[in-house]
Amino acid sequence: MSRFCRREGLEPYVPGEQPKGGILIKLNTNESPFPPSPKALEAASAAAGNLRLYSDPECASVREGLARTYSVSPENVLVSNGSDEALNFAFMAFCSADAPAVFPDITYGFYPVFCRLHSVQYREIPLREDLSIDPDDYIDAPGMVVIANPNAPTGIELPRDAIEKIIRGNRNNVVLIDEAYVDFGGRSCADLIYEYDNLLVIGTFSKSRSLAGARLGFAIGPAELIADLDRIRNSTNPYNVNSVTLACGAAALEDSSYMAECCRTVIKNREYTASRLRDMGFFVPESKANFVFASHPRISGEEVYRKLRERGILVRHFSKERIRDFNRITIGTMEQMEKLISALNDILETVK
Amino acid sequence: MSRFCRREGLEPYVPGEQPKGGILIKLNTNESPFPPSPKALEAASAAAGNLRLYSDPECASVREGLARTYSVSPENVLVSNGSDEALNFAFMAFCSADAPAVFPDITYGFYPVFCRLHSVQYREIPLREDLSIDPDDYIDAPGMVVIANPNAPTGIELPRDAIEKIIRGNRNNVVLIDEAYVDFGGRSCADLIYEYDNLLVIGTFSKSRSLAGARLGFAIGPAELIADLDRIRNSTNPYNVNSVTLACGAAALEDSSYMAECCRTVIKNREYTASRLRDMGFFVPESKANFVFASHPRISGEEVYRKLRERGILVRHFSKERIRDFNRITIGTMEQMEKLISALNDILETVK
Repeated sequence: MSRFCRREGLEPYVPGEQPKGGILIKLNTNESPFPPSPKALEAASAAAGNLRLYSDPECASVREGLARTYSVSPENVLVSNGSDEALNFAFMAFCSADAPAVFPDITYGFYPVFCRLHSVQYREIPLREDLSIDPDDYIDAPGMVVIANPNAPTGIELPRDAIEKIIRGNRNNVVLIDEAYVDFGGRSCADLIYEYDNLLVIGTFSKSRSLAGARLGFAIGPAELIADLDRIRNSTNPYNVNSVTLACGAAALEDSSYMAECCRTVIKNREYTASRLRDMGFFVPESKANFVFASHPRISGEEVYRKLRERGILVRHFSKERIRDFNRITIGTMEQMEKLISALNDILETVK
Repeated sequence: MSRFCRREGLEPYVPGEQPKGGILIKLNTNESPFPPSPKALEAASAAAGNLRLYSDPECASVREGLARTYSVSPENVLVSNGSDEALNFAFMAFCSADAPAVFPDITYGFYPVFCRLHSVQYREIPLREDLSIDPDDYIDAPGMVVIANPNAPTGIELPRDAIEKIIRGNRNNVVLIDEAYVDFGGRSCADLIYEYDNLLVIGTFSKSRSLAGARLGFAIGPAELIADLDRIRNSTNPYNVNSVTLACGAAALEDSSYMAECCRTVIKNREYTASRLRDMGFFVPESKANFVFASHPRISGEEVYRKLRERGILVRHFSKERIRDFNRITIGTMEQMEKLISALNDILETVK
């Protein structure tokens, strides 16, 4: 830290590695194995010609597309530079030094980073032994409740009645449901925003819409909460999303059959992979995301990570004590999954 | 504000209007009248194919390109989602409740917005009568000093010796020089970062590189200050710039002759326009930016704005007391400038 810096105690988020070379199969950051919709790519090319002009600060095309997709009104939608930006705005808007945020001990690692950035206290509530969330732990929380659903990196979905129980048990707190992975077999609770004034749903185009590199995320919520976030957006970066991404995102929303087909394939590959891993003795919680979380009784998570890497396969390993025996493995194409399984078979042979 | 919001007193920035129709000539947000470099557009198309993968969180291609352009090292460069994001990071890093930021009363309207967002006090120092900055007003400031150079919306450049005087007079404060408009005849002070550990320079691709819609900005400074900003970036949005913009920006940096040609034309058109406006009785301070700031003794700024708008020409009018008789007029093509001048001639006829 320089002698001028007035922000102490920051512990930046460490994103999954973007390898420069030597990696043949990249399964570490939950990207889609499929390209974006061809319609999205066409729209991107068309929009590039107009880059001399500022992008639309209202992000109207994407807001309207999301409103149609989720059967809500554009005033219920905020568009952001990746979902991390929407999450950041939510922590800024709805947390403060005297209202700790609450989230599971094992979840998206960025939540505590936002808290430290904004000097917000937080409580990490341990997941159950089986890595699932107990909704009763979140009733009458002291501040905003943040639940990734499906949770990351476990992939486990919290059933809708449990989500509603948490929302109803926190009438004076915002309950933020981070649905980055919901399109792979989970159920969105965005339709509940008209029922509960404290529900905020966050989504992303990075996974199911194959647009991680475009940086496009969103929040869906009651108009009043969205207006709060929008005031922060306009106090931070009113042109927060660039024109090419907006064009691309709007076109991707229209091509919903392409997305559905991609998601179906990922789900099929996930179920196949999980089943094969279980046959090999891995513990793999039931995932509703585009990744599986796997540990094996005979070999440490770090060793699996390292030996896969030696074989040109990159997965994500977390050093956190409770999950250090796991790896999070993004679901790729069937060909990639077969190579992964074959590599894991080899690796297990070495520790027999 | 919703009952959940814990951020009071926000007054969001109001960006220049992005008109939906009826405007023939858009001179209100200082965009370039020229398209981006053809090489930048080619690079954008090529990058779109890879959007399924996250963008490079290191923004290496643009950092390295900027390092070459400014003869600094990549560790002296931070890349941001538009220069507003870099400014926001600087206010977060280098200001606090007990260290007021200091900037002119007439300058980029976003600075006080950042202060309110982060609960930072600020002092607005009146410009001299002639709208220029008196460097002596900024010596021993109580916190970060922020100077847009050339200043907006006046277009007036602060000479290099005055900048250095402010930097030397604030050895314990960061001095932020916002050079959004420097490529139109001003002189960058980025080369001074090795001389002063408290100098931070902010730049943008929105103006001289015709990439407003791509959202690309940067900070150049001593490695320690850049590391501070980078820690905030990685606590906010590590993938802050999308892949298409990175590709586009890197290619634009390589095509420096295209940029130089665009800037030469803008400067030529600016000098012509300023001279014609002065002939018509307008007061036009000498501008080193891609806009002129103009007032006329016979007609209010608001009336000029409204009457130009009726004629399909959009300029920027600010309601702030001290400059309400001015309009900020972006420099466009010569054809656009001739139409502007002709419209202003008509308008002045009506108030004879």
